[in-house]
Amino acid sequence: MKKPHLFAPGPTAVPPEVLLTMAHPIPHHRAPEFEALLAEVREGLKSLFQTTEEVLLFAASGTGGMEASVVNTLSPGEEVLVIQAGKFGERWGEICQAYGISFTPIDIPYGKAVDPTLVATALEKDPKIAAVFCTHSETSTGVLHDIHAIAQVVRKTSTFLVVDAITSLGIVDLPMDAWGLDVVVGGSQKALMLPPGLTMVGVSQKAWAAVERSRLPKYYFDFAAERKNLLENQSHFTPAISLVVGLRETLGMIRNEGLQHVFRRHERLAVAMRAGVTALGLELFAERPSPAVTTVKVPQGVDGGAIVKTLRAKHGVTIAGGQGSMKGKIFRLATMGYADSSDVVVALSALELTLSELGYPIKVGEGIRAAQEVLHRVPED
Amino acid sequence: MKKPHLFAPGPTAVPPEVLLTMAHPIPHHRAPEFEALLAEVREGLKSLFQTTEEVLLFAASGTGGMEASVVNTLSPGEEVLVIQAGKFGERWGEICQAYGISFTPIDIPYGKAVDPTLVATALEKDPKIAAVFCTHSETSTGVLHDIHAIAQVVRKTSTFLVVDAITSLGIVDLPMDAWGLDVVVGGSQKALMLPPGLTMVGVSQKAWAAVERSRLPKYYFDFAAERKNLLENQSHFTPAISLVVGLRETLGMIRNEGLQHVFRRHERLAVAMRAGVTALGLELFAERPSPAVTTVKVPQGVDGGAIVKTLRAKHGVTIAGGQGSMKGKIFRLATMGYADSSDVVVALSALELTLSELGYPIKVGEGIRAAQEVLHRVPED
Repeated sequence: MKKPHLFAPGPTAVPPEVLLTMAHPIPHHRAPEFEALLAEVREGLKSLFQTTEEVLLFAASGTGGMEASVVNTLSPGEEVLVIQAGKFGERWGEICQAYGISFTPIDIPYGKAVDPTLVATALEKDPKIAAVFCTHSETSTGVLHDIHAIAQVVRKTSTFLVVDAITSLGIVDLPMDAWGLDVVVGGSQKALMLPPGLTMVGVSQKAWAAVERSRLPKYYFDFAAERKNLLENQSHFTPAISLVVGLRETLGMIRNEGLQHVFRRHERLAVAMRAGVTALGLELFAERPSPAVTTVKVPQGVDGGAIVKTLRAKHGVTIAGGQGSMKGKIFRLATMGYADSSDVVVALSALELTLSELGYPIKVGEGIRAAQEVLHRVPED
Repeated sequence: MKKPHLFAPGPTAVPPEVLLTMAHPIPHHRAPEFEALLAEVREGLKSLFQTTEEVLLFAASGTGGMEASVVNTLSPGEEVLVIQAGKFGERWGEICQAYGISFTPIDIPYGKAVDPTLVATALEKDPKIAAVFCTHSETSTGVLHDIHAIAQVVRKTSTFLVVDAITSLGIVDLPMDAWGLDVVVGGSQKALMLPPGLTMVGVSQKAWAAVERSRLPKYYFDFAAERKNLLENQSHFTPAISLVVGLRETLGMIRNEGLQHVFRRHERLAVAMRAGVTALGLELFAERPSPAVTTVKVPQGVDGGAIVKTLRAKHGVTIAGGQGSMKGKIFRLATMGYADSSDVVVALSALELTLSELGYPIKVGEGIRAAQEVLHRVPED
């Protein structure tokens, strides 16, 4: 017997009770039963996004929500600012490029967090900039960017702020209305504890004004058509019914636990994980670490790919290596969504055994001991 | 107790064993386990589409696959032909319009099938036409268009043919390679017996040449990037994992039953359903009826909306009314995917009782009797 453990930064584990709820016969999406469900989901999403605005749903993975945010708010000839500090920041740039939107990149070395004054300087230098595209939790590097500080810069201007919050929503505080965020993109397969295939987008009043002006082409991802339908508890096109059914369940779990408690739980697990990893003599990669994912430098003399493979093959633990230019240089351990202290212990245990098996000199048990100390010192609420 | 019966033209019932398979802990999409699964799905899709080409998968509902077919094959300034004989044919026109592609419509009255010579005439008149967009089974009217005849016209030219086969794939024969179809779009929530959220697109060599030339903007729906990944049993972006897991199961069910047998089963059920409905004195709407959905004119003096509502509230049966201008004029009964003769009997029984309850004069039992005669006369293989 080898239990599967999913500690990748998405998809994350789906609670068994949610899997079974999604295994019920699916309702028709135009039936009153589903309309009532969607009404409940709308309220739950507003709480999660901490907004009074509607949160739009699309049957797509997170990249679909990102593309939707570009094509619904911009017009040909507009210029934008893109913060690129990893693969997902760069994705904003790629989408803009695909749609002929010229952008000024703010390129940040992988593993570093963006200095918000760079955004202020860029906006002062070019007030024509229509939008700033950024990433809250950059999953490829494990860095949490300071969106609050960036928002304080952007909200004073006519520029609007678009945030990829795919691995931060429901993990770390991101009050959309209070901070003045304009477009916030989430995905189902992270803290929302669902399979991938559903993306959700919060849109501020300031962004809706941009939507009205927008002339980029769109059809499947149409904010205005989707909101019009959503206000009547409908979707423009056939929704990802089973995922929306699951979403009601997981939003209920988050509501019952309490959003602030969910944030503290993620923080506690991440602090314990980081303590465990560093106690093994490993080095963290991210200078401002995201609680979604702990990014660790592959130690010298060890094959990064072998760490990932050994964890999976010998210990049933799925984590992620580095992507693109980071391949073989880092590995990433996530404690997102359906995660508690037992996951930190299991992940560290498997990591300790794997490193030992690969000949890296550690004292087996030291990582877990350091994590345990954190878990003991920082009690659950 | 009121058992739910889903006889809408999508979503359709998902087999309980498939629901339970999808309720397993989800694998990571970059894990070897999922790669092996995707390899199997690729083969199953080729058999279903009757093609040797790769069938691309996107996390989106069917409309996403339709949009993908437009943006990956066309360029600004190109002209196309769109057969509009219902809401879904018109959707092709709407997508073209959204992307600035000017199109010549062939408008067919709702309920009628397109005459293939109209396509021949249009192509002769304007040889610049890059593509013909059409619908195989027009779900809004219940008409099955003669794609074979249309393909015989188009394949002789340099124009390529794009077919919305969302409610025909796995229901009625549509041999992509043998007929020379260039782009064929399917969806998960019809004959593939899955929840919505997955669309699949078959692409011919002729269409791939168009993909290479295409300059319409795209990012999430990128044929070339998706095929490149698929050839390595990967997906470009995070796939709808649980639906792909389910797809392996339902493709296996179709393979085990035999594709030609699946077609004959659908035909047998549709013939029985039509016999039952006409025996009640009701009139069919479609002149060339699709085996996917039986479209019935609402009889004079009866409220079409009340038929749908009474079926659902009193009999647990979900069907669909008419959409748009057809609202209140027709209703639609589907026997697609996970459907056998018991479904025809249940649907007709509920319809008979509903019509009687609404005061429409029928002889209760006459519809079922006529259907039974067909089921008796046309045995299963």
